[in-house]
Amino acid sequence: MYFHLFAQMKKQLRQVDRWFDKAEAHAKARGFDPDLLVAVRLAPDQFGLARQIDSACDTAKLGASRLTGKDAPKNDDDEKTIAELRARVASAIAYLDSFTEKDFEGAATRTVTTPRWEGRTMTGHDYFLEHALPNFYFHLAHAYAILRASGVDVGKRDYLGALTQTKP
Amino acid sequence: MYFHLFAQMKKQLRQVDRWFDKAEAHAKARGFDPDLLVAVRLAPDQFGLARQIDSACDTAKLGASRLTGKDAPKNDDDEKTIAELRARVASAIAYLDSFTEKDFEGAATRTVTTPRWEGRTMTGHDYFLEHALPNFYFHLAHAYAILRASGVDVGKRDYLGALTQTKP
Repeated sequence: MYFHLFAQMKKQLRQVDRWFDKAEAHAKARGFDPDLLVAVRLAPDQFGLARQIDSACDTAKLGASRLTGKDAPKNDDDEKTIAELRARVASAIAYLDSFTEKDFEGAATRTVTTPRWEGRTMTGHDYFLEHALPNFYFHLAHAYAILRASGVDVGKRDYLGALTQTKP
Repeated sequence: MYFHLFAQMKKQLRQVDRWFDKAEAHAKARGFDPDLLVAVRLAPDQFGLARQIDSACDTAKLGASRLTGKDAPKNDDDEKTIAELRARVASAIAYLDSFTEKDFEGAATRTVTTPRWEGRTMTGHDYFLEHALPNFYFHLAHAYAILRASGVDVGKRDYLGALTQTKP
């Protein structure tokens, strides 16, 4: 199931390119530099668009790394343009593409920790459910919300992507 | 796993009471009626706080119902106060409390549809991953974002709640 949950995260990260397409079209129509959106925040003391995108990528990337023991690529978190944010998302997707279902065998009972936890640990199961998954969606939805509140006409379909449906 | 994923949704819905506590304290400190927050939106053509909370509750409630075949309670979506939104969240939590792990047996292969899909169907597995889970977190994070952008000092711990950690 972890493999499928990460596949879904990957699917949603792929949608971000479409959000940026709409963001660039909006900026062009309004006559402003689309890269100005990179620093927009919903509150002055909350992460802006760049850090929300970085955090969504990191929770997916580090989540998969910690559940499998496979090293994750390092990123510099210094994106200043939409193009650099697109590359950051593509890098997270490429890393997630490297996993197979087999990599997640035993993930539930792995011992997970992070530098911030000062020696405390979680099981892979609890870490994924209580931390990685909700943080991923938190930051992804905030990135969307920043664009939406900035006038970009993203909608729920741009967030979810195509659904696997069977016609009657 | 579905049972555990819904248990996590329930845990996060329980956190919403804490957000509202902070929202009420913020309104009191600033001298405005906290119920004014219920209608706040990040964009004029996006759902406001009430509908974001309703939608988070509905995706959890209907998700569990559609994966198990157990009838879900109906709600009127007419909340005008924080107190009414607290009751709506409590109602979703109470419904989710009624499930056992056994209820989700066979959920992955159930056929799911909604009135909006005009006869199209999804498997329970795809519906949960592609629709219910991402929609739940989308609306929950938007409710949080509306409060945060309104000056309420909610933080990541208020979102995640306590983590199941083992001390060194």
